[in-house]
Amino acid sequence: MTIPTPSQPQPLTLPPRLLLGPGPSNANPRVLAAMSLPPIGHLDPFYLKMMDEIQSLLRYVWQTNNPLTISVSGTGSAGMEATLANVVEPGDKVLVGVMGYFGHRLVDMASRYGAQVHQLTKPWGQVFSLEELKQGLETHRPAVLALVNAETSTGARQPLEGVGDLCREYGCLLLVDTVTSLGGVPLYLDEWGVDLAYSCSQKGLGCPPGLSPFTMSPRAWEKLQNRKTPVSNWYLDMNLLSRYWGEPRTYHHTAPCNMNYGLREALSLIVEEGLENCWQRHQKNAELLWQGLEELGLICHVEKSFRLPTLTTVRIPEGVDGKAVIQRLLKDYHIEIGGGLGELAGQVWRIGLMGYNSRPENVLLLLEALKKVLK
Amino acid sequence: MTIPTPSQPQPLTLPPRLLLGPGPSNANPRVLAAMSLPPIGHLDPFYLKMMDEIQSLLRYVWQTNNPLTISVSGTGSAGMEATLANVVEPGDKVLVGVMGYFGHRLVDMASRYGAQVHQLTKPWGQVFSLEELKQGLETHRPAVLALVNAETSTGARQPLEGVGDLCREYGCLLLVDTVTSLGGVPLYLDEWGVDLAYSCSQKGLGCPPGLSPFTMSPRAWEKLQNRKTPVSNWYLDMNLLSRYWGEPRTYHHTAPCNMNYGLREALSLIVEEGLENCWQRHQKNAELLWQGLEELGLICHVEKSFRLPTLTTVRIPEGVDGKAVIQRLLKDYHIEIGGGLGELAGQVWRIGLMGYNSRPENVLLLLEALKKVLK
Repeated sequence: MTIPTPSQPQPLTLPPRLLLGPGPSNANPRVLAAMSLPPIGHLDPFYLKMMDEIQSLLRYVWQTNNPLTISVSGTGSAGMEATLANVVEPGDKVLVGVMGYFGHRLVDMASRYGAQVHQLTKPWGQVFSLEELKQGLETHRPAVLALVNAETSTGARQPLEGVGDLCREYGCLLLVDTVTSLGGVPLYLDEWGVDLAYSCSQKGLGCPPGLSPFTMSPRAWEKLQNRKTPVSNWYLDMNLLSRYWGEPRTYHHTAPCNMNYGLREALSLIVEEGLENCWQRHQKNAELLWQGLEELGLICHVEKSFRLPTLTTVRIPEGVDGKAVIQRLLKDYHIEIGGGLGELAGQVWRIGLMGYNSRPENVLLLLEALKKVLK
Repeated sequence: MTIPTPSQPQPLTLPPRLLLGPGPSNANPRVLAAMSLPPIGHLDPFYLKMMDEIQSLLRYVWQTNNPLTISVSGTGSAGMEATLANVVEPGDKVLVGVMGYFGHRLVDMASRYGAQVHQLTKPWGQVFSLEELKQGLETHRPAVLALVNAETSTGARQPLEGVGDLCREYGCLLLVDTVTSLGGVPLYLDEWGVDLAYSCSQKGLGCPPGLSPFTMSPRAWEKLQNRKTPVSNWYLDMNLLSRYWGEPRTYHHTAPCNMNYGLREALSLIVEEGLENCWQRHQKNAELLWQGLEELGLICHVEKSFRLPTLTTVRIPEGVDGKAVIQRLLKDYHIEIGGGLGELAGQVWRIGLMGYNSRPENVLLLLEALKKVLK
């Protein structure tokens, strides 16, 4: 053997992190317990039944009746890519609302699939008005309008009420990033006329990262059926995936069963709590945080009416070394918060209160730790 | 809320399956325990260190020094797609050796990336000789030769000795599917001159499904660097992924940390056992199975010298309802075996002895159960 045996790895011992960054967040122990159950075959009758349960639970948390509502076997970015890969054909016009890092990612991905991409832009931390979106649709006449409902890089919540109607008026599909909103922020996909949405498992749903909830309306499905070119991404081709998640249950890939055990348990916990209660809990704990930050003399980057309850950006005060604060929180208190991304790098901290971690005791602890570190 | 609250899901209770099909296989309890540890941040110093460990452990089990050796955040099919998406540019000639279902999948995927695909074909269950491969390279002069080292649909092992030299002679890259061989069948990627390989977590490595080991030689990396078009698949673009798995540790996607805990533990178990011992164990238990099958009057589909120790295809005897046998094994004994795929559908059973499940007691139990069911 040319490659020598590596030294025996040490047993995995993890630091006891409290994850209050942009995600992942800590998972409910019941979710972790579910994930450690033995694997099962991806075509086992039991597993197929569980897939049905997951579909119906995802429809509930997203408030949609879309038949094709599944968990994609990859992280949130795979879900993002799945939406674009399926409905974008080379030459299609895609209009992306860019008000942060993930808007740029949508632009990048759509371009790779051959879209003619146009951008509407806003300073990072702001959101688009309905009038601005209408203007954009009028000017560009896209096949798809892509918006980020919860911009993880800025903490801004893009309102969606009325956007679906506009998209119908202009004959385009509405694609929405709900990575940092699903489970933590009110979402009514069907009421709002959203045609394509994706999310992740590790934020509002409180499951570890690894899966990406995905949903597609019958309108979006129709565009997929009318494609002239095959979906270039095989792994995320919904023509194939829909035949595994539904009849005739044709093998596509070996499903990550343990991740799906965890997702099912996480969704089950939301049913137990009640979706509206869950949203309210996120809002209440975020408000506790915002109040505490204000008392510390810190300023939130986003105007309150568009602030995400799941993810708060806090401006780093003049003269404070933002990176050092992050490192001290991690080192001294095992608390993870995030730094700024892209345009906001070095300007903000990102604090997440998501899923299982959206609890008053976590707010209390973080504020006290911040106080110590900022002294 | 328009979508009513679903009824509270029942606690997850799983049937006690013994997974002796084409995968997943049961996981070592230590792997499952690792997967249930709390999540950690994807840029946490601890997690970055663990990524380095995983890279070095994967290099060991594959016997390669390739710097870019990582786990892709998706199942084996995502790894397959990652190899093609990165090195195939529209118009590139790709020659695929098709001797089963997964060869066809390679053809499908490569076509979606715009390759000009040529096929060498063999009846399902046979393998290519070096001479036949040379002939194919001579005729087609491809940029990439893609072979399936362990054809999960047939149970045949394609020898790779000498193929890398041929590919160098003809100036093409060698891409190899090791989904059903990694960890269970001797593999010497560097010695054999393999440029691109992928595998899965749930077979020879004995971890649940969800990750795909991936490796790329410096030659393949060079082809990627010389592309004239961007990699159309953002999620699997190795230009981006290499900057997360190595310096400057740029955020790409939120890594599925718990799956990687499991993979690390599974690889750690192989170091503990010794890679060669692990290969020998797979071989020994497979031979026990083959002998037992013969004693039951059953015939293996693949000639012994090319038979995979990890996956055995058994011809369904005349007059036996193959599907009914599978169902009775599952129903009466909780044992999962697989049916035939594609051309071999209805003609064979597929029996896997992989990773943690490659144990004499499992062979014994399966043979006894088969005896009862076939009576």
